[in-house]
Amino acid sequence: MTDYKAPLRDMRFILNEVIGLEKHYQSLGLADITSDLIDSILEEGARFSETALAPLNRQADEEAVTFENGVVTTPTGFKEAYRQYCDNGWASITAPTDFGGQDLPNSLATPFHEMTMSSNLSLRTYPGLTEGSILAINKHGSDELKNTYLEKLIDGTWSGTMCLTESQAGTDLGMLRTKATRNTDGSYSVTGTKIFITAGEHDLSENIIHLVLAKLPDAPSGSKGISLFLVPKFLPNAEGQPDERNAVTCGSVEHKMGIKASATCVLNFENAKGWIVGGEHQGLACMFTMMNDARFQVGLQGLGIAEMAFQGALEYANDRIQTRSLSGIKSPDKVADPIIVHPDVRRMLLTQIALTEGCRMMSYYVSTLLDKERFETDKQKHKENTALLSFFIPIVKSFLTDAGQEVSSLGVQVYGGHGFIREWGMEQLMRDSRILMLYEGTNGVQALDFIRRKLLGDNGKALNGFIDQINQFCDGYVYDDTKIKNNNIGGLITTLKDVLIEWESLGMEAIKAAQQDPEEIGACSVDFLQYSSYAVLPYFWALMATVAQKEIEAGSNEADFYNSKIITATFYFDRILPRTKMHKHALLSGAENLMKLNAKHFAF
Amino acid sequence: MTDYKAPLRDMRFILNEVIGLEKHYQSLGLADITSDLIDSILEEGARFSETALAPLNRQADEEAVTFENGVVTTPTGFKEAYRQYCDNGWASITAPTDFGGQDLPNSLATPFHEMTMSSNLSLRTYPGLTEGSILAINKHGSDELKNTYLEKLIDGTWSGTMCLTESQAGTDLGMLRTKATRNTDGSYSVTGTKIFITAGEHDLSENIIHLVLAKLPDAPSGSKGISLFLVPKFLPNAEGQPDERNAVTCGSVEHKMGIKASATCVLNFENAKGWIVGGEHQGLACMFTMMNDARFQVGLQGLGIAEMAFQGALEYANDRIQTRSLSGIKSPDKVADPIIVHPDVRRMLLTQIALTEGCRMMSYYVSTLLDKERFETDKQKHKENTALLSFFIPIVKSFLTDAGQEVSSLGVQVYGGHGFIREWGMEQLMRDSRILMLYEGTNGVQALDFIRRKLLGDNGKALNGFIDQINQFCDGYVYDDTKIKNNNIGGLITTLKDVLIEWESLGMEAIKAAQQDPEEIGACSVDFLQYSSYAVLPYFWALMATVAQKEIEAGSNEADFYNSKIITATFYFDRILPRTKMHKHALLSGAENLMKLNAKHFAF
Repeated sequence: MTDYKAPLRDMRFILNEVIGLEKHYQSLGLADITSDLIDSILEEGARFSETALAPLNRQADEEAVTFENGVVTTPTGFKEAYRQYCDNGWASITAPTDFGGQDLPNSLATPFHEMTMSSNLSLRTYPGLTEGSILAINKHGSDELKNTYLEKLIDGTWSGTMCLTESQAGTDLGMLRTKATRNTDGSYSVTGTKIFITAGEHDLSENIIHLVLAKLPDAPSGSKGISLFLVPKFLPNAEGQPDERNAVTCGSVEHKMGIKASATCVLNFENAKGWIVGGEHQGLACMFTMMNDARFQVGLQGLGIAEMAFQGALEYANDRIQTRSLSGIKSPDKVADPIIVHPDVRRMLLTQIALTEGCRMMSYYVSTLLDKERFETDKQKHKENTALLSFFIPIVKSFLTDAGQEVSSLGVQVYGGHGFIREWGMEQLMRDSRILMLYEGTNGVQALDFIRRKLLGDNGKALNGFIDQINQFCDGYVYDDTKIKNNNIGGLITTLKDVLIEWESLGMEAIKAAQQDPEEIGACSVDFLQYSSYAVLPYFWALMATVAQKEIEAGSNEADFYNSKIITATFYFDRILPRTKMHKHALLSGAENLMKLNAKHFAF
Repeated sequence: MTDYKAPLRDMRFILNEVIGLEKHYQSLGLADITSDLIDSILEEGARFSETALAPLNRQADEEAVTFENGVVTTPTGFKEAYRQYCDNGWASITAPTDFGGQDLPNSLATPFHEMTMSSNLSLRTYPGLTEGSILAINKHGSDELKNTYLEKLIDGTWSGTMCLTESQAGTDLGMLRTKATRNTDGSYSVTGTKIFITAGEHDLSENIIHLVLAKLPDAPSGSKGISLFLVPKFLPNAEGQPDERNAVTCGSVEHKMGIKASATCVLNFENAKGWIVGGEHQGLACMFTMMNDARFQVGLQGLGIAEMAFQGALEYANDRIQTRSLSGIKSPDKVADPIIVHPDVRRMLLTQIALTEGCRMMSYYVSTLLDKERFETDKQKHKENTALLSFFIPIVKSFLTDAGQEVSSLGVQVYGGHGFIREWGMEQLMRDSRILMLYEGTNGVQALDFIRRKLLGDNGKALNGFIDQINQFCDGYVYDDTKIKNNNIGGLITTLKDVLIEWESLGMEAIKAAQQDPEEIGACSVDFLQYSSYAVLPYFWALMATVAQKEIEAGSNEADFYNSKIITATFYFDRILPRTKMHKHALLSGAENLMKLNAKHFAF
């Protein structure tokens, strides 16, 4: 099994050289965040992930969580690792300072989160859900709730969950049946059964704070009638210490394909005591507060898995000796050549790199939009940022999770038969990453959100605005026709400009088709989202390539590093970007080929 | 969990209506195989697979095989099911009559094999390997070996294995280290360790007959120095009964991602007694005897999994009620519509159908080539058939196994979160099918074989011959320009002809590029094989659509069935065929984007 090594050089390249974090922070009035702080978070995060999290990951998959008499036990080492996670302050990076948090920008937490997801995705899901709870309580909770719960959630003594799904209500939350009734003391009684609750029960924290969607008796029907309740496992006493057990119990844990060390629970609420978060019937709006963040985090999980799969595949491709190169012996001292000499193995590795680093660039960029969402004070800028962030969230969620699955499957493929054997670790990455395309809204749901809310919803403004931004980048770079032709980047920029024209026109086509027939929305949604993702990535690769090119021209002594970025960018344009052609033809083919077949005639 | 139901109507459509099995058998002098026999095999095979194999599949995945002190125990019910399998004569369909087999054509066994793979892939691997052993022993073994082993292998009392891989020798068999020495009695002593041996040890049969690749002391180096030995677990006594234990032991079983009920063994041979099969140093040629068959069978496993995944997804899509149709309420009596109303769910289901049925058509067609390989007496026709069969084997092996993975992943996706939960059965299909892209030569190895041996090897003759065959079909159908425009098929035929032109020219490009730079072979291999697969499938879909169209025009009372074939064919052309565009651009991009990056610079 390959040891995880945080890709610090690649992370720094994106953060410092391409994005320019320090300048970004200055523009948001966060000048106290220096490159020293950025660096120490990277270094310490790497050390922690490599030494405390990664070594537990394989064994935890074998042990999985266990369930007995309502008690969930996490695998060996999880308690200690979780404790370190909290003690080192990793749980509080972005949390509000009023309650012990560090209130640092998301972009500073993002590389660390990626590392935790590469090294131990299951473990990461425990503090991960708490972060969402903190967001919701801080924004929508009463002062009393904030005072009682935030500090302990932020220091990790307590952990949080999101209780949305019920067996009959997944994508369609309007169908949920969990009920809440008002008590005379201002609290509520919550009754119902929730499923698929990540970290719903476990032994890592002394209390678990559930955020539960339920309906009041007089609620409007459908999703407008949902309220959000805070329901603790143990009711805090007057001193804020966990006291009486609340009427919420874990009925079972799911046996899953992957992330087996993450407890996915059925939770039964039987007149459990809770308090409302936000107004009555305002639950869905409260959930939306967390949604951008949660979906971004799931995308990041895909990136984390992809990075680990690439590291494993690269190690194996260098170590594994098998057959000779097509163009003659490359390692005459060995009985065969390492398989990295074979073009098809290189194709797989380069696909892994092009997707992984492209996704990293994209998600780190989007993390700066999350920063602006919190720290930008100019109203107009904030509004524009919100639109762009919303536009990107379904792309990040779906594309990075698709990439996680593809890159980990390529990892298995590079290993040949060994990829299928558990002890080598590659198949676990495939299994762990398969959930990512499903939870926090399936990728099909992301595509509907993208086309309905982010494209049709503002009549293509966000799309066109972003295309303008890329065009400005292209025009800014292409200051000199001669230069374009004489360096490595010119061809990329030219192709990128062509893609933008096609992307814009497909967006307009999609809007037109959807206006004529609502089925067209769903008929082109996934292909349009995938087209858009593959069309965004060349921008990020061009960004990286131009920075690399400038460094090379300036005589950097890291020319090999920068060259590798240009080569990978070229690979992306040559061999991955053509996927847009497939999506273009599919999405233009219209709804009829999907809707014509009678539901009864799918099988005979 | 969805119960497996053999898709008999679809199978009969392909076998009887599109291929015309009876006529095919007549042309091979097998006129005694009537439609009654075909039918009874289908009916009985369906009953057996549905009632004896499918019910064991889920539980067997949970139990897996267990290993203790060299003994492998298969899951509950496997012994009884295996016994029935043999008692019912399923193990002997294609085996030689001289030793108790039925000597029936492969095309008659293929639909049954597909059913076993849909219903219980792990169980199928036990008799599956025996079939290959029978082939090899029958063709290359001495009369004594045949007389001692074939009858018991054919009636399933004994089972067989193929011992090729060693930890340092997978793709590169020339690197194997297992040694054989000559004994004075004409037997050999075999010493070495083999890994990844399917059914290498188990409790289903009273003896296990290993076919082992090993090198004699004076063997030429590399793959030309390999010999094939028959090494029984128990040495038969004079009466042919298992007697003395041979020096072959199971060291461990692998813990795998999937097919957990199939024993994947490490086998240790320590001066184990064996007999040569074929001539000394002729082992690889003997293995080639089995290779077409084995690779075809693995492709079929992909088809089997795909069918089961489709059945599961379709059932769920009809049952699961969630949100309303984009174009308004479809089930006013329910609180939401079944998800099959949603275009994107239909896109996933139709992708499953188009791939699964297209693959079924392709593999059943190729099974008729396997028939001709055995029964065609005309030498010229036999030679042409061999070329076409060889051309198809890497396509079937890689494309059907890729499809198995894609279709089962789509199955998981249709189920949403439930797809990730073991009890629903969908994730098992993904895990089970992942091995198929790896064993019997990874799909990358198939692609190299395709381009080196099947394209370059005969300078494109097989490709062009097959393209001619499709063109004749197109020209035969397009007897009337008016007709083309007036029915549903004309557009498909026109597109198909365009694809053929492009396919041929890409083939010629690939040959040219490969002649200039050997790295180009590996640089375009996978994309060319995938292009070829996606370009072959429209032929098979057009075949099915034309038959369906004729039935509709003739006023069939099964118009809904035939219409569904035309709709699915159209879906294939609209939404799957565009994948060729992606592969075309990638394969034409050349080797430089793969070879330029120094192996040391894939990561920093």
